[in-house]
Amino acid sequence: MAFPITRRMDADRFWSTMEASAQIGVGREGGLSRLALSDADKAMRDLFVEWCGQAGLAVTVDAAGSIFGRRAGADDSLPPVLVGSHLDTQANGGRFDGIAGVLAGLELVRALNDVGHVTRRPIEIVNWTNEEGARFSPPMVASGCFAGQYALDWVHARPSDDGPTFGDELKRIGYLGETPVGGRSIDSYFELHIEQGPVLDAEKVQVGVVTHGYASYGALVEFRGETAHTGPTPMDKRHNALLAAARLLVAVDDIGWEYSATGGKATAARLVAWPNKPGILSDWSQAVCDVRHDDPDTARAMADRMHAAVTEAATLAACEAKILDTWEWGGRIFDRALVNLVRRKAQELGYSHRDLPSQAGHDAYFMTRICPTTMIFTPCKDGITHNNAEFTTKEEISPGFDVLMHSVVAQADRG
Amino acid sequence: MAFPITRRMDADRFWSTMEASAQIGVGREGGLSRLALSDADKAMRDLFVEWCGQAGLAVTVDAAGSIFGRRAGADDSLPPVLVGSHLDTQANGGRFDGIAGVLAGLELVRALNDVGHVTRRPIEIVNWTNEEGARFSPPMVASGCFAGQYALDWVHARPSDDGPTFGDELKRIGYLGETPVGGRSIDSYFELHIEQGPVLDAEKVQVGVVTHGYASYGALVEFRGETAHTGPTPMDKRHNALLAAARLLVAVDDIGWEYSATGGKATAARLVAWPNKPGILSDWSQAVCDVRHDDPDTARAMADRMHAAVTEAATLAACEAKILDTWEWGGRIFDRALVNLVRRKAQELGYSHRDLPSQAGHDAYFMTRICPTTMIFTPCKDGITHNNAEFTTKEEISPGFDVLMHSVVAQADRG
Repeated sequence: MAFPITRRMDADRFWSTMEASAQIGVGREGGLSRLALSDADKAMRDLFVEWCGQAGLAVTVDAAGSIFGRRAGADDSLPPVLVGSHLDTQANGGRFDGIAGVLAGLELVRALNDVGHVTRRPIEIVNWTNEEGARFSPPMVASGCFAGQYALDWVHARPSDDGPTFGDELKRIGYLGETPVGGRSIDSYFELHIEQGPVLDAEKVQVGVVTHGYASYGALVEFRGETAHTGPTPMDKRHNALLAAARLLVAVDDIGWEYSATGGKATAARLVAWPNKPGILSDWSQAVCDVRHDDPDTARAMADRMHAAVTEAATLAACEAKILDTWEWGGRIFDRALVNLVRRKAQELGYSHRDLPSQAGHDAYFMTRICPTTMIFTPCKDGITHNNAEFTTKEEISPGFDVLMHSVVAQADRG
Repeated sequence: MAFPITRRMDADRFWSTMEASAQIGVGREGGLSRLALSDADKAMRDLFVEWCGQAGLAVTVDAAGSIFGRRAGADDSLPPVLVGSHLDTQANGGRFDGIAGVLAGLELVRALNDVGHVTRRPIEIVNWTNEEGARFSPPMVASGCFAGQYALDWVHARPSDDGPTFGDELKRIGYLGETPVGGRSIDSYFELHIEQGPVLDAEKVQVGVVTHGYASYGALVEFRGETAHTGPTPMDKRHNALLAAARLLVAVDDIGWEYSATGGKATAARLVAWPNKPGILSDWSQAVCDVRHDDPDTARAMADRMHAAVTEAATLAACEAKILDTWEWGGRIFDRALVNLVRRKAQELGYSHRDLPSQAGHDAYFMTRICPTTMIFTPCKDGITHNNAEFTTKEEISPGFDVLMHSVVAQADRG
């Protein structure tokens, strides 16, 4: 029996789950501070697992803590269509980023249950651990592990800013699962997400068909210098690692401005130093920075400049620099057939839609490495995100949800 | 009975106290990490109080935690001559900075006891609380309070980086004394200190007659911006407080280089931000910076440039800046008569000596505001300080000690 294109979202049921989520890990007014593997994250996970059970899903947790809820297919031997996002947030996060994508997956399953539609392929919904990287660096570490990008031991050894490792905290909150991470066939991956940009909201377009991701390059850089007194130490005898990091972050920001006319961005995101005290020069620092551009060649050029800036910052501060980690994502990574499917479903459903790129990083980026993947964007007021003022409405999410639902069902049912 | 100029330091006895101190709050190899009001600071204080008692001193602790050991004078109604420095260190501190000056005061008392010499005026030795400012900002807060610069309540309310306030920690370690802070007549103040600069070591000169301090201006600056996503947020919509602070620190360093030919220094000393995470722009930061020059007018000009840099950094990062605190010290502050006395005693004792300025801040700077004050410098290997490689020997300290002892006795015995 076909799944009728007339089916629409039960927006109130979906929204009740969003509102329950908004009570867990409350941050600043209107926002959330639900850092990965915190007590609040555990409370949200527990609720999500409970909901999955109520929806008849078979729940498994993998060894990176990602939670999968599986709805059997008519031919359950086929690889599943995977739908999801993340339930963790930034320290000053909003109530929608990531969360809407996971709970859309749950709502999708409930919608299928409502009409008793069994898809040909199984459907799995997923909550990826630590997408944000707000407590454990780097971000998207669990989907990266699932896609074979990161070794599990390495993931478990990631330190939090507050002390315990990723592995310690998984164990502590009871989400160190026994299921191996990845290593299995996935038919395709869909992720619904608020746009985190102003385009849909400004143009009053209902659905964003995500064609590709901004090409992004990031780096975690360490500088080593020498402690000394801030008073008598002559300028040419200084090896101030704090200054080296500050010089890098300023240089990276300058790169962003140079490319801003064509939509380029560069970010001074994080700086830590030791001892980082008034009377003493710091002998250690770390900085995190990244560059992004819609054009992959331009992004590559920006990244080259960022790497040159590392050397220059170290030279100017007479410190040693070491690039501890680099990452890149984005580009023309989404599956053309899936992008076309999403666009077609938006048309069939009668929703206004437009193609647009993703500028943020998403778990979907890693999934492109192992299966056809695409994303669907919904409006986000003024493009504000990673801020407690992040805002959207159930009316704004519904069209994107409907497109997700019909695309996923079509994909799962295809012959 | 006069105190004979032939008396010299008991270097071994003095050194045994330095070595005992070097066992308390051990940091990196050869260094100390004895932060103010920590358990290690308490242990050092307890030992110092015990030593004071053994030397027959009447010990009092004031409400800012500073410890005074008093040796009665023949005319005990006269204001005391005060001698001291500090026993706290930086996080990567040395074994001599401050400590030598306090324990020289103790040794001076022991030397007077050896010959039963009672000075006309009382002599007090002092350990000032939190000279370094390595745990509670600003530095030199207890001597500043003693000199009427800071209100006691304000001092008690200073937060540590690790949570509790200055007042909490004074209470916890048992050094919240009942003696009022300052408000009494002090005849004069002497402070012996390692030079924290390379001059005496390089020129093989035994004693530094400190004529004045580098004029120094510092500021604690706060920036406020707005959190947002590091990805999609356009460059011209960013209000990254971390970047504002980084821009300030780079600009301040640039100022230092511009004046380095004439010995000017400018320091990017401290930067903290929130959330300070990879995926989000920070909406709050604080930076500490300072400028120093031997010429007061030049230092003033550097300070003006530093303040202009605050505004420019805020403008470039589209943040709000607020200068939370400023401080200044140094200049021609030491008492000419005491400086002459120190120089004369060095001559009488036959030690090589030279005039030189202090470039670091010291408790002595605040004491100049309430009594005639001077300092005596001893060599410091390669000028290295605020580092575990800080180094000197008992042979290098002895001449400075002898000059201190004879200067203090002459000052205390004068008619």
